[in-house]
Amino acid sequence: MDHPEPQTFEDQPGEVGLVEWKDFVSNEPFSFASGESIPGITLRYETYGQLSAAKDNVILICHALSGDYHCAGVHDLRDRKTGWWHNIIGPGKPIDTTRFFVVCSNVLGGCQGSTGPTSINPQTGLRFDLDFPLLSIEDMVAAQELLLRKEFGIEQIYAVVGGSMGGMQALQWGIQFPDKVERLLPMATTARQNAQAIAFNEVGRLAIMQDPEWHDGTYPEAEGPAVGLAIARMMAHITYLSNQGMEDKFGRERVATGAARERFGAEFQVESYLRYQGQTFTSRFDANTYLYLTKALDRFDLYGASGKLEESLAAVSARTLVIGFTSDWLFPPEQNRSIVHALLRAGKEASYAELEMTLGHDSFLIDAPELYTLVKDFLK
Amino acid sequence: MDHPEPQTFEDQPGEVGLVEWKDFVSNEPFSFASGESIPGITLRYETYGQLSAAKDNVILICHALSGDYHCAGVHDLRDRKTGWWHNIIGPGKPIDTTRFFVVCSNVLGGCQGSTGPTSINPQTGLRFDLDFPLLSIEDMVAAQELLLRKEFGIEQIYAVVGGSMGGMQALQWGIQFPDKVERLLPMATTARQNAQAIAFNEVGRLAIMQDPEWHDGTYPEAEGPAVGLAIARMMAHITYLSNQGMEDKFGRERVATGAARERFGAEFQVESYLRYQGQTFTSRFDANTYLYLTKALDRFDLYGASGKLEESLAAVSARTLVIGFTSDWLFPPEQNRSIVHALLRAGKEASYAELEMTLGHDSFLIDAPELYTLVKDFLK
Repeated sequence: MDHPEPQTFEDQPGEVGLVEWKDFVSNEPFSFASGESIPGITLRYETYGQLSAAKDNVILICHALSGDYHCAGVHDLRDRKTGWWHNIIGPGKPIDTTRFFVVCSNVLGGCQGSTGPTSINPQTGLRFDLDFPLLSIEDMVAAQELLLRKEFGIEQIYAVVGGSMGGMQALQWGIQFPDKVERLLPMATTARQNAQAIAFNEVGRLAIMQDPEWHDGTYPEAEGPAVGLAIARMMAHITYLSNQGMEDKFGRERVATGAARERFGAEFQVESYLRYQGQTFTSRFDANTYLYLTKALDRFDLYGASGKLEESLAAVSARTLVIGFTSDWLFPPEQNRSIVHALLRAGKEASYAELEMTLGHDSFLIDAPELYTLVKDFLK
Repeated sequence: MDHPEPQTFEDQPGEVGLVEWKDFVSNEPFSFASGESIPGITLRYETYGQLSAAKDNVILICHALSGDYHCAGVHDLRDRKTGWWHNIIGPGKPIDTTRFFVVCSNVLGGCQGSTGPTSINPQTGLRFDLDFPLLSIEDMVAAQELLLRKEFGIEQIYAVVGGSMGGMQALQWGIQFPDKVERLLPMATTARQNAQAIAFNEVGRLAIMQDPEWHDGTYPEAEGPAVGLAIARMMAHITYLSNQGMEDKFGRERVATGAARERFGAEFQVESYLRYQGQTFTSRFDANTYLYLTKALDRFDLYGASGKLEESLAAVSARTLVIGFTSDWLFPPEQNRSIVHALLRAGKEASYAELEMTLGHDSFLIDAPELYTLVKDFLK
């Protein structure tokens, strides 16, 4: 009586473990919302959990600007770094892989294995670079739909989940394929980029494009405008954190060793941290891709010509939960809340939750029991 | 009886009119807080109004990072551009030149005529560039004190007024020369730069220093890292505005002509505006100077080793009014308010006013009757 029943593996919070990515290859021409098209696309993706016989347990995870297909588990048992949303995806976790078949792909236009500006243009034998079509959130969603349908025969998605640019994709899914999605869970996102967000992206793009190593986008592979890309990333990184979060983490702490002698070296910890963030980003991300993805963000506007969000959202049939974070100043709570207000005005089933977190925009990525409870309950 | 008395010129709100800058030259060695020294300094300055016989009507205006000595009037009657605080300084204006003798100098370390990195080092015959001593707000204030004392025999200042970096100088005046200042009026400022503000400055500095045209600070005159400086300025400019202010001014308005055809050209008005801001800045500002001044901002810390602001402020004897602006996220209201709280804890005469304005950090520069009333009443 004192001893609880032994729990089964399924009850235990666990880990996804060793995972492998795969490539979905479509050789049919792919048309972009811009009207341009390319001969075919590849999407690199991972899955966790088992697809049910009825194919009714699918959760699609959509990643943010600098994310990729690898959102849970490890690629090698010696990996110290797990997928970017490892904390929330796994057996017994809020996105429970004992119950759901979880799919995440690198977005179309990305540089982590999916077709994008770094891919070879079959018509020229050279990289697309700036010949890649202008990209939109709509295109990313169309490509994901193709992946699910062609690779797995999936016609119904239990939930589309994502933060930031991933949240935009979730919203776009609800509009573009309303009959295919039962639940939408966008977080830390917006229905349109406002002037300030566009402004930050534009400065980042100019830092890249004005780097002499950019060469109008034709830099050789493994080279490129690393300086400009690092500057863009450092600045963007500030917008992913919060004033308070940075204060708590760094304050005015100085670096330990001799940089004070160097007149303009990294003197404060926050400087050293940002320099590191900038440098490491350039080894895993492509500069032209950064241009394309930020432009897709900037052009995203569900308010449309009418300026009425409820008109775009009229198509949605999914139940929606939007989560905003109090300290997110890139896509502040009110921008998240207004999505739900518009859904309600359009007569949809929608709710909004606001989490008090100090980390800023990136709060959706952290280990937070309140977030886990919301996600778990919504997916029940 | 129905007719009001004719007003005299002094009663009328008016303009400072034609003004001329002058250079104060000191040939005595100037010692910096860092311990370094240079053989002499020049400060370029302007004055408006008349110094009273008792020399008791002096108002010192301190400018912000990108400002200069020219804060009122015009240099030529054909000038369409007036001094940067023209709206608040003049006959009958809140800083009333019929009553006060107003002095404003380009800061030591600046590039608008005062001695700074662009000046010739008399010991080498070459520009100082990075041989210029590390600069602090303390040094700027010491140089201003020298100017007032040596050039005018001024030993007493009625008020020191400034926003942003100018507000830091005002606070520093109260600490460094407590017996010389009767009133301090800092606004949109902080007693120490926090991690986020340091982070933005650091990205700007790296944009400059990683520009190949920087050449470790030895670029030829009239050349230099224009690209890096423009990037730094564009990013900083975003921090001077506010989310709401940018939304009101630009929203998602697109530029009128053909840029949509250019894949990554300026598509939105806000992009075009920022590009213009970046470009024009490089024609009037020096990149090394930007490094020195932002570093002076970053190192400013009145909390000191003890972490107790009231300990630094214990020296202050001036009456102080601090003004914060609700939409200022660079130096938010709470940072302004905390200065007054610390002054009160230290037993000083101080008050805080918070103005509801949507423009962000730059609110202190705009035409705002509430601000004028506060300034006018405080200087009574």
